Amino acid sequence: MTITTHSTPALEPTAPGSLMRTEISEQASIVESLLGARRAVDAITAEVRQHDIRYVLLAARGSSDHAALYAKYLVETVLGLSCGLASMSTVTGYGARSDLRGVLWVAISQSGGSPDLVAATAAAGEAGALTLAVTNAPASDLAGVAQLHLDIAAGVERSVAATKTYTAELLALWLLVDSWVGRDGRLAAGLPEAVASAAVVDVSHIVNRYRYAARIVTTGRGFSYPTAREAALKLMETCHVAATAFSGADLLHGPVAHVDGMTPVIVVSPGGVGGRLLRPVLDVLDRHGAEACVVGDALLGAQSALRIPVPPVVEELTPIVQIVPLQRLALGLALSRGLDPDRPRGLSKVTSTL
Amino acid sequence: MTITTHSTPALEPTAPGSLMRTEISEQASIVESLLGARRAVDAITAEVRQHDIRYVLLAARGSSDHAALYAKYLVETVLGLSCGLASMSTVTGYGARSDLRGVLWVAISQSGGSPDLVAATAAAGEAGALTLAVTNAPASDLAGVAQLHLDIAAGVERSVAATKTYTAELLALWLLVDSWVGRDGRLAAGLPEAVASAAVVDVSHIVNRYRYAARIVTTGRGFSYPTAREAALKLMETCHVAATAFSGADLLHGPVAHVDGMTPVIVVSPGGVGGRLLRPVLDVLDRHGAEACVVGDALLGAQSALRIPVPPVVEELTPIVQIVPLQRLALGLALSRGLDPDRPRGLSKVTSTL
Repeated sequence: MTITTHSTPALEPTAPGSLMRTEISEQASIVESLLGARRAVDAITAEVRQHDIRYVLLAARGSSDHAALYAKYLVETVLGLSCGLASMSTVTGYGARSDLRGVLWVAISQSGGSPDLVAATAAAGEAGALTLAVTNAPASDLAGVAQLHLDIAAGVERSVAATKTYTAELLALWLLVDSWVGRDGRLAAGLPEAVASAAVVDVSHIVNRYRYAARIVTTGRGFSYPTAREAALKLMETCHVAATAFSGADLLHGPVAHVDGMTPVIVVSPGGVGGRLLRPVLDVLDRHGAEACVVGDALLGAQSALRIPVPPVVEELTPIVQIVPLQRLALGLALSRGLDPDRPRGLSKVTSTL
Repeated sequence: MTITTHSTPALEPTAPGSLMRTEISEQASIVESLLGARRAVDAITAEVRQHDIRYVLLAARGSSDHAALYAKYLVETVLGLSCGLASMSTVTGYGARSDLRGVLWVAISQSGGSPDLVAATAAAGEAGALTLAVTNAPASDLAGVAQLHLDIAAGVERSVAATKTYTAELLALWLLVDSWVGRDGRLAAGLPEAVASAAVVDVSHIVNRYRYAARIVTTGRGFSYPTAREAALKLMETCHVAATAFSGADLLHGPVAHVDGMTPVIVVSPGGVGGRLLRPVLDVLDRHGAEACVVGDALLGAQSALRIPVPPVVEELTPIVQIVPLQRLALGLALSRGLDPDRPRGLSKVTSTL
């Protein structure tokens, strides 16, 4: 297999989507490099083990928030620890100060530059938490303010739509949990190859079919729910489509009412437990006359006319592979609509919110 | 002021939306009753105080999940305790078992009948958590399986679109936190009157203006974010519109790219801290040519041509008042589109997910 090398920044103008395309294709190589940097992760977990960690709080926004959601599932199912997503406005807006002794606070951000994340992480440290920043920017404010730093080492990301930094965040968080629980990383054998294969899966029939879709629903359960959320965000920011993500369970609690024959539904299935939980969702979509496209999970895919097959890996690693063809779907759909996914309307690479 | 009495179930067919309309109008009376039942809440918090609670986990789905999000803000800002929303699939699907000693587990459900919530609550109790069910059904499985039960006493809800049970859940959770922190409830003086006034605010100009909107974005920050989420769910389930909710901060991290002159944005502002955090969001929407409609917060509303004024109450109680005109917006818009909000397509009152 050929694995491309990381991009370096350039100043010349680029063709629409060329940055996103390049960065999508770099992911297999970045995954391979990160897996090789296991020792840095082990050093962090050695430090974490010195503390009596009772639960984990995750803080992030945008794509990184979906990586945080993935980490939540990992922490709960692999480590057996409780885990929550922090509401930053309670800290930075309302001045809430909780006693965070016994808490590992993990702040996730590509740029490490969001002021609210930096402020909330500093406050978490003052409140007694052990703080860890997971970023693509070791020199960032966030990396500086946290006690520990895990570098996702994805290289400079130039497209505004995050792709390679998202999968690198996922893998960094998986490595953290894998190391913390005392495993040896062998579950990730073959992961770079799976990501490389996922990057060349044909999605052109779905790009074509969704050309005029005004809205798209995405859904998943368990380990595929973060992928559904991230896919919806990519579609929204690059294709200007009203894309909404629901956990399979929540979808049936109300939102399914707005799903009909004009609403394509992307069902991301991690196989295993999550796949079983999604089967009734597929039945309900069918009764609503909605066309489902199943991503991954050949078993569930057999129930559906539209499929995006994805190389199988163990369920807890599926998010790192399954998002890749969905990034390419967003790229292709944006281009087919005459949009430049590298420069979505009104967005910049670092979003400053307080 | 006139406060209508609670509805009783009837078997005869009803005109479209008449159940939802009645139940919306009952909310002021239910709020008044619940405020009068403070003693039952005090008994529960007396029991909670016997335990060394270090953090709070909330479990819910659908509208109740938005009540849980409200409770998260309250627990963090008023009690200064950490608080997380539970991912039920990690427990009921993946079999995750965390040590939950020192945790108050609060399960919120109108019907108390969702099998996954019942199973996750039983598991939380076995894992050492103190478990509390907040329901409208004292005889439900959920109330039975939890160690403590708080009855929201909203009367039978017949419309599939939850309205009065949502505000009753909000108030029950506020009473719990107010009592737990040792306050005396006086912040809620005037709340029934504010809810009654909110139930007659004129929203017809917005119903008219959104008649043909294909998608609607809702946003809020801090205490108004749960309201934005609940409003989007009501619009989705009753009007079949693609309604998507974002925290004001997350909206600027990507999703704003899909917002344009054809995307009406409902900005729910709690005033105070949340209102200040929303000001830059309004500026960005303006640059995108999107038309904002500000709900509540006269200060922020002055920046916007479209407004839904809502009687002011203290910021932490605004969610109980501000959702009311938005329920009426969903009702009115559904009727104007020829839909029956009492019986949304493909939904039933109790959703069974595993």
